Amino acid sequence: MSYAGADLLADASWDWSDRFAARAALGGGEVTAILSLAGSPDTITFSGGFPAPETFPVDLVGPVVADLLAHDPARTLQYTPTEGLTTSRAAIADLVSATQGTRPDPAAVLVTSGGIDALSLLARVFLEPGDQVVVEAPTYLGALSGFAGSQAEILGIPMDADGMCVDELERVLGARPRRAAPKLCYVIPDYQNPTGLSLTVERRRALVQSCRRHGILIVEDVAYRELGFDSAPAPSLWSLGPDVVLQIGTFSKILFPGVRLGWAVGPHEVVAAMAVAKQNSDQCSGALGQQIMHAFVTGGYFPAHLARARALYESRALAMLDALDRQMPAGMQWTRPKGGFFVWLTAPEGTDMARMAARSLEEKVAFVPGSPFYPDGRGTNQARLAFSSVPVDRIERGVRRLSDLLEAELRGASTGPRAGSSLRTGG
Amino acid sequence: MSYAGADLLADASWDWSDRFAARAALGGGEVTAILSLAGSPDTITFSGGFPAPETFPVDLVGPVVADLLAHDPARTLQYTPTEGLTTSRAAIADLVSATQGTRPDPAAVLVTSGGIDALSLLARVFLEPGDQVVVEAPTYLGALSGFAGSQAEILGIPMDADGMCVDELERVLGARPRRAAPKLCYVIPDYQNPTGLSLTVERRRALVQSCRRHGILIVEDVAYRELGFDSAPAPSLWSLGPDVVLQIGTFSKILFPGVRLGWAVGPHEVVAAMAVAKQNSDQCSGALGQQIMHAFVTGGYFPAHLARARALYESRALAMLDALDRQMPAGMQWTRPKGGFFVWLTAPEGTDMARMAARSLEEKVAFVPGSPFYPDGRGTNQARLAFSSVPVDRIERGVRRLSDLLEAELRGASTGPRAGSSLRTGG
Repeated sequence: MSYAGADLLADASWDWSDRFAARAALGGGEVTAILSLAGSPDTITFSGGFPAPETFPVDLVGPVVADLLAHDPARTLQYTPTEGLTTSRAAIADLVSATQGTRPDPAAVLVTSGGIDALSLLARVFLEPGDQVVVEAPTYLGALSGFAGSQAEILGIPMDADGMCVDELERVLGARPRRAAPKLCYVIPDYQNPTGLSLTVERRRALVQSCRRHGILIVEDVAYRELGFDSAPAPSLWSLGPDVVLQIGTFSKILFPGVRLGWAVGPHEVVAAMAVAKQNSDQCSGALGQQIMHAFVTGGYFPAHLARARALYESRALAMLDALDRQMPAGMQWTRPKGGFFVWLTAPEGTDMARMAARSLEEKVAFVPGSPFYPDGRGTNQARLAFSSVPVDRIERGVRRLSDLLEAELRGASTGPRAGSSLRTGG
Repeated sequence: MSYAGADLLADASWDWSDRFAARAALGGGEVTAILSLAGSPDTITFSGGFPAPETFPVDLVGPVVADLLAHDPARTLQYTPTEGLTTSRAAIADLVSATQGTRPDPAAVLVTSGGIDALSLLARVFLEPGDQVVVEAPTYLGALSGFAGSQAEILGIPMDADGMCVDELERVLGARPRRAAPKLCYVIPDYQNPTGLSLTVERRRALVQSCRRHGILIVEDVAYRELGFDSAPAPSLWSLGPDVVLQIGTFSKILFPGVRLGWAVGPHEVVAAMAVAKQNSDQCSGALGQQIMHAFVTGGYFPAHLARARALYESRALAMLDALDRQMPAGMQWTRPKGGFFVWLTAPEGTDMARMAARSLEEKVAFVPGSPFYPDGRGTNQARLAFSSVPVDRIERGVRRLSDLLEAELRGASTGPRAGSSLRTGG
């Protein structure tokens, strides 16, 4: 609509989108698609990486809230300092200490409104259009769209069974000076989203050394770290290099997502700058959630709660791996996660998993095709299956339908003997 | 530290601040200062615009949460769609309908994590460095630092007793085409922060017409709208021009801030773009807060709750105005708010209210000097007094100390008869 037209047409309305900033067109759409898939009740949803409601400590939350309202109502319902309540920051320091063996200075802990909030604050603090960010390829969708929304250039470093290929990162970085190096290196070292793979101890040490040498801040996302099935995870990157690592954590997976709550811990100047940025995003994280978390830590509820959650997720992972082993057609490969929420599927080269995802949805099974997890469109023959929020009987049924679909697809595609049929088990 | 040095010094650490984005240095510091002032227990704090804990519906929240956990635990503790739960969006539409006389389409309602979240999302959607934004001068600090953080140019339009001088806005806009017009016009029409003043009905209509003609999106902040003392507020800008107004509201003042919760309602394409931006900030607002709010709206608790809150704030406003009337030295002027949290003080030209604020703090009375509320450093002789969270007896005592201080200051400053002594009552 033209300017002159506005004077003539009293009730005509403007199209506001022509005034949007360039960044408004970037990032985010994939997340919408995935979250919206999760809503259909009769679909078996391997799509969203949601925590299982069965793990929510419903019986504990009620009494905890009642107690907080009885004894500390003004603090529980009021604003908090932007960095978080002093008690909450200390509780997070205690939790990190108990699970990672090193206690951070509570003054270097920022309470955030979940993991995405921390990523968003980091992007505000560090990223100018054109800046480079290193990620694992594939990686968390929310990180990719967040970094893309900041108009950063994203470098995907390949992964193998031992996690990110740190020697490949070294090769890419070469001998360039710090001012030309990427600003951030985003890594999910434990039971990664979307692959379920973990970074080995040796590579953790190498990654810390490499980023320290190049002056690149490692952003360590520990969203799934406490959800390993059988043994303790490798040392956190932050515990190996607190000078060069900003760790971000979330309570969405280990408590519940219904209060938006997480943390950032790392170099003081980074945490302080994130706190300033937070004044312009949501000012502070909710006091009610902070107080519930504090009560959980100080009440000693986490160990038993996490043990129950781990057992549930392990039973679902095993059910999915068992179903995949029994039902998937030859030529398919998948990872065998030892924790977290996800199995990563690789079909023979040339299989269009985006098309399969659409076909699968008609059969009431939802999953996310692999390509959106890469910064550069690779992964078209891959897919993510989330077992976290699907009961065992539905996992079995969903994998069967998906296997039938892939069986038909691969039979149609191949004429001679199947390529890669010896690679039937997961990589 | 140089790149070569990093190889030589194994345990030397980088200064990360040299890698921060330019925007990291902008905005936010003032808010920290104000929030930190609020922490000292024996200081009478007229500084932070905090809601009174006495208004928090503590007795209702406990049973509401218990009921939600008993009957709807999975939804209450899980992620929600980015736009908010369907039930929450409908509840907000109902609340807006009840208080503003027009019901928005729930599909055009975005649940936000408070008012600042909405401003932050708007900035992401609209603002490129150098874009212009119009604000009332003075205005809300959080808006100024948010817009400044987006590297926008901020145009402050003067206010008088009837609110923003819309004819002055028209004069500034002149005949420039839309592409050269400011992108946003941020207004707090009811019981404004920091002045306590409201925009008259005539000016509301003129503002909507003006911005419609120029194609400027009005951002209407209704944070204090439901906290008028004696009569209904004037029609909301959104109800007058839903095609040209994006309204943002918060539950921090009318319920409690301890769950971060608010709303945005306006043109569909703007709300949709804000929802995409929200996927990269906190993904969704907390379900627990959304569900508590929904229970409050559908349970019909708001009218009685708001009546109690209004009565409390009115008693504090009257106590402050009474104390100012009795104790302030000649030459001082102040506003007489009919709602909200704030009185705006104007000292004779040349009085340095920043210095007075520092002096006052030594006397254990905190307030915010006026200059940070302006985009251009004006207001050095002004100050904001928040009566919202201070009990009546402390208001009386705080105003007395402040009056004594100003009395001494003005006596010292003037030699002849006092200028402006006939303007003793508020403007």
